[in-house]
Amino acid sequence: MADTRKIVEPVPNFSEGRDLDKLVFKMTNSIRQNSRDALVSHQLQESYDALKTKGLNLDLTRGKPSSAQLDLSVEMLSLPGFSDYVAEGATDCRNYGGLQGIAEVRRLFSGVIGAPAEQVVVGNNSSLTLMHDTMVFALLKGTCDSVTPWSKQEEIAFLCPVPGYEWHFGICKEYGVHMIPVALKEDGPDMDEVERLVAQTASIKGMWCVPKYANPTGTVYSDAVIERLAAMKTAAPDFRLYWDNAYCVHHLTDERIEIANILELCARHGHANRPFIFLSTSKITLAGAGLAMFASSTDNVKWLLARLTRQTIGSDKLNQLRHVRFLKNEAGIRHLMDRHRALIAPKFQKVLDIFNEKLANVPDVTWTRPKGGYFITLDVPKGCAQMVVTLAKEAGIMLTPAGSTHPYGKDPDDRTIRIAPTFPDLSEVAQAAEGVAVCVLLAAAKLRS
Amino acid sequence: MADTRKIVEPVPNFSEGRDLDKLVFKMTNSIRQNSRDALVSHQLQESYDALKTKGLNLDLTRGKPSSAQLDLSVEMLSLPGFSDYVAEGATDCRNYGGLQGIAEVRRLFSGVIGAPAEQVVVGNNSSLTLMHDTMVFALLKGTCDSVTPWSKQEEIAFLCPVPGYEWHFGICKEYGVHMIPVALKEDGPDMDEVERLVAQTASIKGMWCVPKYANPTGTVYSDAVIERLAAMKTAAPDFRLYWDNAYCVHHLTDERIEIANILELCARHGHANRPFIFLSTSKITLAGAGLAMFASSTDNVKWLLARLTRQTIGSDKLNQLRHVRFLKNEAGIRHLMDRHRALIAPKFQKVLDIFNEKLANVPDVTWTRPKGGYFITLDVPKGCAQMVVTLAKEAGIMLTPAGSTHPYGKDPDDRTIRIAPTFPDLSEVAQAAEGVAVCVLLAAAKLRS
Repeated sequence: MADTRKIVEPVPNFSEGRDLDKLVFKMTNSIRQNSRDALVSHQLQESYDALKTKGLNLDLTRGKPSSAQLDLSVEMLSLPGFSDYVAEGATDCRNYGGLQGIAEVRRLFSGVIGAPAEQVVVGNNSSLTLMHDTMVFALLKGTCDSVTPWSKQEEIAFLCPVPGYEWHFGICKEYGVHMIPVALKEDGPDMDEVERLVAQTASIKGMWCVPKYANPTGTVYSDAVIERLAAMKTAAPDFRLYWDNAYCVHHLTDERIEIANILELCARHGHANRPFIFLSTSKITLAGAGLAMFASSTDNVKWLLARLTRQTIGSDKLNQLRHVRFLKNEAGIRHLMDRHRALIAPKFQKVLDIFNEKLANVPDVTWTRPKGGYFITLDVPKGCAQMVVTLAKEAGIMLTPAGSTHPYGKDPDDRTIRIAPTFPDLSEVAQAAEGVAVCVLLAAAKLRS
Repeated sequence: MADTRKIVEPVPNFSEGRDLDKLVFKMTNSIRQNSRDALVSHQLQESYDALKTKGLNLDLTRGKPSSAQLDLSVEMLSLPGFSDYVAEGATDCRNYGGLQGIAEVRRLFSGVIGAPAEQVVVGNNSSLTLMHDTMVFALLKGTCDSVTPWSKQEEIAFLCPVPGYEWHFGICKEYGVHMIPVALKEDGPDMDEVERLVAQTASIKGMWCVPKYANPTGTVYSDAVIERLAAMKTAAPDFRLYWDNAYCVHHLTDERIEIANILELCARHGHANRPFIFLSTSKITLAGAGLAMFASSTDNVKWLLARLTRQTIGSDKLNQLRHVRFLKNEAGIRHLMDRHRALIAPKFQKVLDIFNEKLANVPDVTWTRPKGGYFITLDVPKGCAQMVVTLAKEAGIMLTPAGSTHPYGKDPDDRTIRIAPTFPDLSEVAQAAEGVAVCVLLAAAKLRS
């Protein structure tokens, strides 16, 4: 492959008054630069053409566990076993009932979700469903603090830290909930902006938050940011933080970051009903057959159960029991997550190594180095993201559509690309990352020309 | 136990003009009757008091399978097994995806649900969830034939054949969908009334139907009724039959009744999008860990999938595969249902035998003799049902609350009681039925006095 490292020009040392020399230098330089650019562009095009001839078929779109990760939970496929179906309180997990979920599974995840077991509700296999359904319930019935259902109000809005998660935005879009982007900074959402907006606008009913190893940036909200989210004054009395703690135990390093407890902080600041906490075992046990969980204040739990009782007799308790038998305790969860990390951390490292090798010092190209979660965010020069995704697609590398990290699919700078390295195997990840780097360089060159 | 069989008076042969004799006879008779009534009442009270001393703790409230029925599916607790997780199309059932459900499970139930596999959508463990969610989607988004979402219209209504299923009514009540009761006759809903109502009232958007072995009467809709439901003109262009075929293979006799295919009939009459068909394996495999299914026209399926994609990445495919491995084919389903029947038909027969022994010829007391399903409906004298349920409760026999078979929990005649004999064992069912009979007789006697 051609060397595509950026050619760094020596910067001449101008002094005042030597304008002619300066002009001559600039013209000469421009000619040299143009011919050099043309050469580089030509080399990049050659690299890209070579990439295309490989006939790749790689997918970096979705944060899916790999087959090897799913193998870690192979035991579950035979659990709970012939004679094991009775949960605490003589609950026959095979039969109807148990709207909140069996006690032992709520206790098992209590520490991880950061709420007492009595304040945990267990759903079926998708936390997205719980997020969607709490939105629907709030729209049609209102929350326990709402004067009228959200759908009976003129227009309601959610704050959306960007870049963010397209499936969150999808729920808002589906139900006409206006999305207001706010910048996601190093330590979480831009709190000055968040506080300003929620204080003045009663129609802002909620905010999407992935507080730890955020999708797609890997951002971890600082304790100070979390405290401000808990404490801030909101014009809407029924404002809710949709707190999607999807990656709470999904560390990629030894650091094992812990964040502040949103439930406790909200209660301490007199906003006990503010957080709706969501958790999923899809990326702990089995992606398609995990458990979704909700945790919140006593009032919110009561409210949710009153809604759920019109929708179901109860979630699949056998799958709950299956999880209890397999994971056993919190140490079991952490041990399993260590094994996931052993499988996926090298894939992240591979992407970072290749980006570092191929894209370091390319102007306006940066990427995140997440300490957990499932994604790397690659920022390319403004106006390039769509082109990179298209180039990659044509070379057989599927990337998440450009813009999907932003509300309404519109990245105003067209620069953010989400990289999901977990699903392909390590050699494929390497190929894909190399390919993406080629596409980024070519797109940047095309933009310049 | 005291003999509580009804005392039948000899009817005197009056002739015209003998008014004095008639009056004397009536007065004498009245005194005799009163004292005899008092004696009977006393005996009934004694029977009831004896019942109470038994310290029963029996539950006839919910159509729950018994433990022995759940044992029939014990194999499922270890399925699909360590190495079995790949479905057709190389689908890894452990991972994300598969919004519509795996092909083999849709094919497995295609015949039973009466729709091509391509028009079946598989949910998680509760068909109530699919009914609830399609209602919610219609309210917030409208159906594929709606001009505006149902929630944006003034008031909408559903027809509710009565007696009916309280969890259906619960969904309407939750979302303020007005419920209009229509009589359920021997062969299904009163179609003259149904046709009249839907033709003239555009706000009637749907109708709850349990077309086979209905809850709680065991009613089977005749082919003629089903054809009229398919053919009738509705003022609402987006009218939907919520066709809850919950008991489609749940026979209690050799008759194995089959009903007309609502999907085909609706299409034939130009109303392809009219039926939303729901099915559940909760009373086939495992009550709390079964599969829910939806079937309908191609347009409705497309509409539903477009909604579901905002709610979930897909239902639990491992549980789908588990069902395929266990049930194997339609013959497997029918064989399993025969085994259920062997367990529960004797319970139904026991209730019928006891009612026949204790309540035959009691004025205004009747009950259904279902050929399938999970319930017997017991009709008691007007104004008695609430009293019977209360008396039974005080004697340790839990019955479904009186009125729950009607919209808003209001049985205008206070006469219908739902009996669910499947869950307790046979001796308990006998005790409970005996006890209910005592309560009915006592309540009827109290009403007369």
